[in-house]
Amino acid sequence: MSTTDVELMHHAIGAAAAVRASTAPNPWVGAAVLTPDGEVHTGATSPPGGPHAEVNAIAAAGDVRGAVLATTLEPCNHTGRTGPCAEAIIEAGIRRVLVGIQDPDEQVAGCGIQRLRDAGIDVEVGVCADEITAQLAPYLHHRRTGRPYVLVKIAMTADGRTAAPDLSSQWITDEPARTDSHTLRAESQAILVGAGTIRADDPSLTTRFVEGPSPQRVVLGSAPVGAKVHPCLEWRGELGDLLDHLGGEGVLQLMVEGGSSTIAQFYAEGLIDQFAIYVAPAMFGGDDGHPVFVGSGAPTMADLRRGRFVGVRQVGRDVRLDIVLD
Amino acid sequence: MSTTDVELMHHAIGAAAAVRASTAPNPWVGAAVLTPDGEVHTGATSPPGGPHAEVNAIAAAGDVRGAVLATTLEPCNHTGRTGPCAEAIIEAGIRRVLVGIQDPDEQVAGCGIQRLRDAGIDVEVGVCADEITAQLAPYLHHRRTGRPYVLVKIAMTADGRTAAPDLSSQWITDEPARTDSHTLRAESQAILVGAGTIRADDPSLTTRFVEGPSPQRVVLGSAPVGAKVHPCLEWRGELGDLLDHLGGEGVLQLMVEGGSSTIAQFYAEGLIDQFAIYVAPAMFGGDDGHPVFVGSGAPTMADLRRGRFVGVRQVGRDVRLDIVLD
Repeated sequence: MSTTDVELMHHAIGAAAAVRASTAPNPWVGAAVLTPDGEVHTGATSPPGGPHAEVNAIAAAGDVRGAVLATTLEPCNHTGRTGPCAEAIIEAGIRRVLVGIQDPDEQVAGCGIQRLRDAGIDVEVGVCADEITAQLAPYLHHRRTGRPYVLVKIAMTADGRTAAPDLSSQWITDEPARTDSHTLRAESQAILVGAGTIRADDPSLTTRFVEGPSPQRVVLGSAPVGAKVHPCLEWRGELGDLLDHLGGEGVLQLMVEGGSSTIAQFYAEGLIDQFAIYVAPAMFGGDDGHPVFVGSGAPTMADLRRGRFVGVRQVGRDVRLDIVLD
Repeated sequence: MSTTDVELMHHAIGAAAAVRASTAPNPWVGAAVLTPDGEVHTGATSPPGGPHAEVNAIAAAGDVRGAVLATTLEPCNHTGRTGPCAEAIIEAGIRRVLVGIQDPDEQVAGCGIQRLRDAGIDVEVGVCADEITAQLAPYLHHRRTGRPYVLVKIAMTADGRTAAPDLSSQWITDEPARTDSHTLRAESQAILVGAGTIRADDPSLTTRFVEGPSPQRVVLGSAPVGAKVHPCLEWRGELGDLLDHLGGEGVLQLMVEGGSSTIAQFYAEGLIDQFAIYVAPAMFGGDDGHPVFVGSGAPTMADLRRGRFVGVRQVGRDVRLDIVLD
């Protein structure tokens, strides 16, 4: 793999990041074309019904005969709401295709790559695969399990408290962190809180700080008449059934915003895929502030659940820690 | 201020960092000489009794007539265990001196700068001052208050717990984080834990993972005969008196390693200057794990104590967050 291949794929990854909130239930894919005269043109998945990334990149480049095309996800080879991208690539005269990862969607699953190879195109699979697997994690999880990727957002002090003893919590983190969390909302097709959070805070759960669609709102239990969260889905059944239901509706990512007992319930059932924890440089300084989880946790060190940081960055005065448990 | 000045001072700051653990009760100072032919030579404070940074940098450079010298801290102008650095700079024929910050030590306090100016040397004060103020924070705090800078080290899970309900805690963080915390021990001239930690863990509190001196060991209360922490100071009085005592002995930094009630006691008296929090990508998942602080904390949001992150970095699989409260 030459450096040029990786650089070209990074253009594609960047293009994909820009459409993270607007493609569901389709994946946010990026593509980049390197023309024989050395120019790079990019494209990304349009909103549902519009062209896919590869077609947009080819259109941006114009004449692409003899060009190299990088795409983060395997091109489709079926006619859905748009024509097959593999055919568009072949017809455009692309010489070589770099694919980040194979598409697990049963309508693609290797067929796109096979079609390109059958047409005599040189195809390399696996360029920047780890990076792209992380970028597309919710989509891949959905196609693999039929359920949305569950992202739990927590805002806490550096001594691990999410609210004061009197349950006041506005605001532990600063405005840039709250804006960042609205980006997470825009990237989620559904958002969930417990009924207790509705009664305590009456949140609207919209993406008012950022551009982007507001997610479908889900309340565990019931929301009082007049609550700002309406219209919403009020769910009284099992969490697993809820995830199956939302997955069936094309929800790729479900954001869980609390409170502590709702998060503990998802945690106890092993349903959390990622934590996004905003840590403020602040301390309550006691053991009577509200905890991240309520109820019994691991009784001893051997039962501690471990994982890995998938993101560590400062957001304004706060820090965002992203964790995936093993 | 030209870029060259800042670059030269960064050489001096780097030289100072390398001697962070070996100069107390003297400050860890770095110096860099830029000779007229464009060469840079550095020096740093030797262990107590040895030459200061400026003299070491001049010795490393050889002929320094017409050179520029950068020093992180104002040169001394008094004869202590070594001769005055200001005189050495004048005699060496240095043309221009960049000083990071003034030395608050009452034996210096501007006199070094004045002596250089009286000798006709061009002196610029305040180059990279913020960076150097942070680097020398424990020294500056000691000279200003007579007390050591109190650094509290915490190792916790991402849900804010420092031990399991059965009090087991070995090991929440991974080896690189534990090694990093031994560097903090080597940079501290004293280390303190509560008697409960001695009874529970029987720690030796040495710097066995790294090169560097082990700090003087202090136990709040008494340590059982045979405990690994001996020889140690067993303190039964007020914390403020302890800090006065240690400051008088030349302890520039006191590291507090727990447990929760000891940390809460320092916190309640407003005696903590910095937190170094190692966060593991792990969860206990309940509210029955051991908290960072025991006892009552801020009752409502208006009483939350805020500060700022002065360091955020990954250490192996863990993350280290450094916080200074306002």
